[in-house]
Order: sequence, then structure tokens, then C-alpha cells
Amino acid sequence: MHLEILRMREGRRERITDSLTEEGTFTIYVGDVELVSMLCTPRDIKELSVGFLFSSGIIDSFSEIQENVINEKSSTVHIELRNPRMIYTPGCGKGVMLDTKVESIEKIESKMKIPAQRILSLVAEFQGQSIEFKKTGSVHSACFSDGERILVSKEDIGRQNAIDKIIGEALINDLNMEKMILITSGRVSTEIVHKALRARIPVIVSRSAPTFQAVKICREKNVTLIGFARGKRMNLYSSEERIV
Amino acid sequence: MHLEILRMREGRRERITDSLTEEGTFTIYVGDVELVSMLCTPRDIKELSVGFLFSSGIIDSFSEIQENVINEKSSTVHIELRNPRMIYTPGCGKGVMLDTKVESIEKIESKMKIPAQRILSLVAEFQGQSIEFKKTGSVHSACFSDGERILVSKEDIGRQNAIDKIIGEALINDLNMEKMILITSGRVSTEIVHKALRARIPVIVSRSAPTFQAVKICREKNVTLIGFARGKRMNLYSSEERIV
Repeated sequence: MHLEILRMREGRRERITDSLTEEGTFTIYVGDVELVSMLCTPRDIKELSVGFLFSSGIIDSFSEIQENVINEKSSTVHIELRNPRMIYTPGCGKGVMLDTKVESIEKIESKMKIPAQRILSLVAEFQGQSIEFKKTGSVHSACFSDGERILVSKEDIGRQNAIDKIIGEALINDLNMEKMILITSGRVSTEIVHKALRARIPVIVSRSAPTFQAVKICREKNVTLIGFARGKRMNLYSSEERIV
Repeated sequence: MHLEILRMREGRRERITDSLTEEGTFTIYVGDVELVSMLCTPRDIKELSVGFLFSSGIIDSFSEIQENVINEKSSTVHIELRNPRMIYTPGCGKGVMLDTKVESIEKIESKMKIPAQRILSLVAEFQGQSIEFKKTGSVHSACFSDGERILVSKEDIGRQNAIDKIIGEALINDLNMEKMILITSGRVSTEIVHKALRARIPVIVSRSAPTFQAVKICREKNVTLIGFARGKRMNLYSSEERIV
């Protein structure tokens, strides 16, 4: 969206037309249950809702969804599952959490190998693709790569939403996420690692920093975690044997 | 926290000890009601919980809190109010929202004036203060300034938490937020504007971008919103007459 604003630079004042990113709130219903309201970039809502249901442990595959009705006007998504089940929602206001405890998630066994230089060139390509970021200086982006090229790429004002969107698209198009590298513009906190583990992704690459707890889980679960991947440098926090 | 990691730079591999930011989850109870679980930097939990209750419209002043018992071990905060009341929590998983609709919040009438140059020097000072960011490359920070100096400054892995922490400290120390400038490292989305409106803050300054919807509310409610305040430049999105 465009707005006229006032830019001040080196003491000069200038009226310019600026491009701003949009935000919206979407509420996801599964059957009759109001699952969650999320603040997001109001695009790719189908991918977002499918990815969110998967990340939250409510579905294991896209085929479990019978209907996914998006109503932009009322900002709602109504999802019907093929086999309706009880949905576990924790206490009010807690948000929906993974229904699987991290401790019970199996270690990642992937034998993937990828050259360090390839990671850096994928990050450079990824960065070059973020159109919305270039326009507005806002939004996060996330993509999947098979180590050769970027296959799925999405943007959102929320770090986590961008990742749910690419997971959603991977599920819809039946991509094998066990063979994917996840690249994200945002910081890597435990929530991001949980989503990646749920999707069995062996390598997470971020342009930004991870938290201590995120690194700890990646070391336990044999996920390769790379941070500050920019230009000609990156930090390897865990399972570095996949990077050759 | 410190961890040994592998740094790759220009093709060289180097083992270094890196500093990483921590994250934790705290659950806030008000009386018997489980209000919210928040992922946060586990510091300044008293300020965070007081600020969160205020931002959510549950309290109007610090004096309404009778007890605020923080249990680091169980990661909980138990709050007792002087006058216990029904607490409105919306549907499960929705998070706690402001119980006041934005439409019903009155316009900000503040006659505050502040020179553009002063804003930029405060932002430079604010940026120089973020110790955790310098160490870890992560975390957001937020501060209040009276236009002369920085009075309250906090950090958190969450944009919103950093702001709730300074609001909490302002309430505890009885600072008049109507005379404060809010400076934040993070993007300004509607949630941030809601918190500022609730605290009657006339000027929001961000080093980053606002969303279209955030600008719209600021224009309606006469909040001065400044973005991309860095070095010698900034963008004025609304109520620019306060900046002289």
C-alpha cells in the first residue's frame, strides 16, 4: 500500500510516496473449534493455515484436509478434516502449541551433505528474491531449497508465519521436506526449531542469530543450524558434518 | 550464555566461543486464571508482567496489584489484584487482547514539540546502549525518553515484550507516560500502536518500518509515528507537527 509521508534527511524535508507492508488478522476454525487468530501478511492464507495446522501437530499431511474455505471479507479460514477428531487447545490465551513434546521427537538421521559455498550462494539468491522487503523494508521471508535451487519462497510480517507458509506450500505440492534446507531471514528461536523438527528438515540457515535454547535442541536432535549467513561468512552451531 | 561454535569466513574455519541470547517461557496467572504463556528473555519479569497486564487493559495502574510473585523455577508469575474481578479472556488460543476497542480510544491531545535533531541523537544514544544486542546480534530493545535523556530501557527477544517491560517499569516508578517518547528497535505493527495508545504516548520512534495499518491508526489517533530513524534520516508517517 502507498501513502504520502515526510522524509527528513540531512536536515532536508521532502514529501514522498512510500510503500508500506500490510497486516491483517485471520482466524482459523477447524470444524466448530476456533483454533487461533493470527496477525499476518494477508496473502497465501491457504498455505499459512495448512502449514500452521501441520506445525501444531493437528494434521500430518495435506490429504487430511477435506475443505479449506478462506473468507477474505470476514478474515476467517474454515477447515474441515476428513476424519474429525478432538482438537487439543491449551488454556485460553496460550496459543496453540505442538501437541508433541520435543523430547519425544526422534533425532534427524539425514545424511545430507552440502558445500558451505552453496549455502552462501543460496542465501544470496534468497535475499535477492525478497521483493516485499525491498519495497517496504519490513517483512520476513523463508524458503526451501533442495541444495540446488530455491523451490518455495514466502514472505510475512511474522517470522513464524513465513515458515508456516512454505511448509503449507510444501505439503500442498507434496514436496519431501526431509530433503530440504530451510532458509529464513529471521532469528531462530525454539518455536522455529520445533516447526523444522516437525517437518523433519535437516538444515536450518538464518541470516540472523539463534537463541541459546534453539542451539541446544538442534544439538540434541542432530539438526544443522547455521546463523549469520551473509556475504562470505556464517556460523555453524550444530551438526556441522553436513556442511562440507 | 556461551557456546563453542564453528565460524566460517572467506573459506577459513575457526572455532570460537560465541555469546547467545537466552529465551524462556513464563506463564502469568491472575488469581486462578491462567492468563498467558509468553516466550521472552527471562529477565525483568516483574516489569514484563505489570506492563502486559496494563497493555491488555486488565489494570490501569500499578497500585491495583496486591501481590506479584515470580517463581523462576516453575517459570510462573502469580498476580493478585486488590480488587479481584472477572477477567475477560477471549477464545482459546487467541491470546489476550486489549479489552478496549481501538475505535473507542480517545485521540492523543499532547502538545509535545521536539526537534528532529534531538530525536536522532536520542536514537543514536539508545542504539549505543543495547548491550545484549552487541553481544548476541539478537534481541529487541525499547526505551522511554522525556526528550532530554533516556529514562527507562529494556531488552527482549520479543519486540512487544521489550515495550511491555518499559511500560511496566514506568508504571512501577510512576513515570508519566503521556510525556514520553517511545523508541523501539523493532517494526511497528498495530499491536505496538495499541500498547502506545493505551499508555497515551504521543510519539513513537522506530529504527525499522511501520505497517500500513499502524500508520492508519496513528493518523486517526494523532500519534506521531517516525520510522527508519537512523543516522541522519527518518520518515514521518503521522502527526508531524510535533517534530520541529
